Amino acid sequence: MEDLIKLSVKTKPSEAGEYPVVIGSGILSNQLLARFAAGRRNFIVTDENVHSAGLDSAFQQEAGFFVISPAGEKSKNITTVIEIVEAMEASGMGRDSVITGLGGGTVGDMAGFAAAIFKRGVPVLHIPTTTVAQADSSIGGKTGVDSSISKNAFGAFHHPAAVIIDTHTLKTLPEREYFSGLAESVKHAMIMDSDYFGFLEASISELREREDDVLSQLAEKNCKIKAKIVEEDPCEKNQRRILNYGHTIGHAVETLSGYKLLHGECVSIGIIAAGLIEIELGSGSKKRVEKTENLLKELSLPVRIPEYISTEQILSLIKHDKKAVDGWPRFALIEDIGKALTKGGQWAHPVDAEIVESAVNKLKQKP
Amino acid sequence: MEDLIKLSVKTKPSEAGEYPVVIGSGILSNQLLARFAAGRRNFIVTDENVHSAGLDSAFQQEAGFFVISPAGEKSKNITTVIEIVEAMEASGMGRDSVITGLGGGTVGDMAGFAAAIFKRGVPVLHIPTTTVAQADSSIGGKTGVDSSISKNAFGAFHHPAAVIIDTHTLKTLPEREYFSGLAESVKHAMIMDSDYFGFLEASISELREREDDVLSQLAEKNCKIKAKIVEEDPCEKNQRRILNYGHTIGHAVETLSGYKLLHGECVSIGIIAAGLIEIELGSGSKKRVEKTENLLKELSLPVRIPEYISTEQILSLIKHDKKAVDGWPRFALIEDIGKALTKGGQWAHPVDAEIVESAVNKLKQKP
Ligand SMILES: NC(=O)c1ccc[n+]([C@@H]2O[C@H](COP(=O)([O-])OP(=O)(O)OC[C@H]3O[C@@H](n4cnc5c(N)ncnc54)[C@H](O)[C@@H]3O)[C@@H](O)[C@H]2O)c1
Ligand SMILES: NC(=O)c1ccc[n+]([C@@H]2O[C@H](COP(=O)([O-])OP(=O)(O)OC[C@H]3O[C@@H](n4cnc5c(N)ncnc54)[C@H](O)[C@@H]3O)[C@@H](O)[C@H]2O)c1
Ligand SMILES: [Zn+2]
Ligand SMILES: [Zn+2]
Repeated sequence: MEDLIKLSVKTKPSEAGEYPVVIGSGILSNQLLARFAAGRRNFIVTDENVHSAGLDSAFQQEAGFFVISPAGEKSKNITTVIEIVEAMEASGMGRDSVITGLGGGTVGDMAGFAAAIFKRGVPVLHIPTTTVAQADSSIGGKTGVDSSISKNAFGAFHHPAAVIIDTHTLKTLPEREYFSGLAESVKHAMIMDSDYFGFLEASISELREREDDVLSQLAEKNCKIKAKIVEEDPCEKNQRRILNYGHTIGHAVETLSGYKLLHGECVSIGIIAAGLIEIELGSGSKKRVEKTENLLKELSLPVRIPEYISTEQILSLIKHDKKAVDGWPRFALIEDIGKALTKGGQWAHPVDAEIVESAVNKLKQKP
Repeated sequence: MEDLIKLSVKTKPSEAGEYPVVIGSGILSNQLLARFAAGRRNFIVTDENVHSAGLDSAFQQEAGFFVISPAGEKSKNITTVIEIVEAMEASGMGRDSVITGLGGGTVGDMAGFAAAIFKRGVPVLHIPTTTVAQADSSIGGKTGVDSSISKNAFGAFHHPAAVIIDTHTLKTLPEREYFSGLAESVKHAMIMDSDYFGFLEASISELREREDDVLSQLAEKNCKIKAKIVEEDPCEKNQRRILNYGHTIGHAVETLSGYKLLHGECVSIGIIAAGLIEIELGSGSKKRVEKTENLLKELSLPVRIPEYISTEQILSLIKHDKKAVDGWPRFALIEDIGKALTKGGQWAHPVDAEIVESAVNKLKQKP
């Protein structure tokens, strides 16, 4: 066999790079965008709600535009990405273009994926306008859209050329969306930074008022934490799994609620579930769970599983978690607030079904 | 502005890699494929002609299958790629799968692109079954498909995990397809390897008989040349442009023939056009053009522009060549057989319109 290998083709490594994260309040302008477009023609992708909220008004004059409609998950599929690419072609965009995704995580995931595959790849700029996107989806380079069969069936890793966060954009975000996204901030604090947790506890009223200064600090802390993790483990082989904190049971609840509960609301519930599991495993404490519950509740987030969802349903669903190994998921857990639990270099851990079941059962009680 | 940049996210370089090219005759088997699938579940993408020719018979038992229909360019679009991905999902394929593209360049381009975007990327194996694919498209990592508006609107760079060339597969290739693809071999010899040119001249009857030994040598020489060029310049910034030799006028003729002429047939004509341009520029000779013409004719390839295409049409079309700079293409040229022309580090050169016009006019005459 070896003698049939006639040659070997070498593939060059890509170069190491870096991209800036700009954070400010009321900073969006054509000039700012032009700076990061680096001479490329800009094509802006946004959605109908962001457009109605007027967040694209700073850019309307100069660029090509695509407004996704309807907004949200319903449009996050390959069909919309094809429409974006064909709209770019129709407006004469070529390899010398750049795509700017202005909106929440769905817009960013679509704009990023379109950029990854348009003419074998053009740069993307992210202007995240939700708490989810400013804390989570705009950093890390994951892009993807759904097929008619499953979520994120199509996707690519494609890092942005820059991320531009303007806290003013959050002012128009509906209340539930706003608080829901803050669950990812609580998650970041819990897995990496106890001072940040303290900052959140101390900033409740500023957060509820959406004060620019606190939101800027929040964005900066979130991006630093997410960046640190994805820099270490860009393709989710190990450390990046810690970002899944609160998500295993969270995802099950999200699905079983028929998506009536928002993603972050379910992560909030999942964080408490993780806390209860940690108690059983000896790395948690009742006091810590209470402290966490208080913070989440102050942020208008739920901390109990709705009555209409049964423990059985949850257990049977997490067996199908996409990160499951041999039919049972591994759990991202913490040792203490600000400190992820690692064992033998692993960032996700097997947990006995009985322990999971008992944690879920406890969360079925009224708070 | 600088003070708004709150942090910078580092992106890791990808690792350098390499992939094997296996060349043999009658070697296709499940075992061989399994070796390169490296434990992954295999999903084979092929087309109806390759299937009818029985080339997938070695694999039928074990793998998931998708048979593209109709075969050829008509199907090389994003719709087919979506069908491939959804067929993979329907047959339970996940991130632990590998796609094998068994067929010509269209199959390879679709299989490669599907692999690039399925669940953010799975490996692809290429088993090229045409002279084009064995010499050209299976090496280099370019993948892509058409939109309803333009060619290769969607694409990605995605290197294969291995390329497996079995010269037996060429036995069923229709005569015109077979010879057409050999134009890329002549091109390779002309830009890089004068011994190879001599080998082609000396192997006419073996080539016409499709003898395994000569076809194996041909595949090896082609892959070595293409690999050397794409290793240097994976993203077509400069040196890779030399692969465009004969293609500028070739593409125009291909389009203007309404695709009645095959790609390689037009490259053959384009190679002669390049030879005539080289004479005008002082790097060519009448003798070299004759020698080249003889070889191409022995390989049943055309060397004149069909009468129904006018010089005017060609000149107006090459202004829209996708590699044009300021409305006029640059030409890949050679200094001598086996030696590309480079000037000041450039591999593609400006040529006066009059010189191009005169070359095209000469090619409008009967040979
Ligand atoms: N790529 C990643 O790493 C990553 C990480 C986390 C989440 N995600 C993805 O992100 C998506 C969720 O993100 P999201 O919650 O931002 O969803 P979203 O984009 O659907 O935004 C939520 C809603 O808010 C609206 N909206 C957005 N910004 C607004 C503003 N400033 N004012 C008024 N309305 C506004 C949107 O139109 C939408 O209706 C999911 O698809 C998820 O898969 C991706
Ligand atoms: N990715 C790259 O770097 C690259 C380079 C060159 C060309 N290409 C692409 O390759 C395509 C052309 O390649 P092609 O000429 O191989 O086209 P193709 O795949 O359409 O094959 C030509 C015809 O031969 C049939 N066929 C293939 N193998 C056969 C066999 N062994 N026996 C019988 N019939 C067989 C096919 O069904 C088809 O009808 C174009 O789409 C072009 O853009 C890509
Ligand atoms: Zn999340
Ligand atoms: Zn070609």
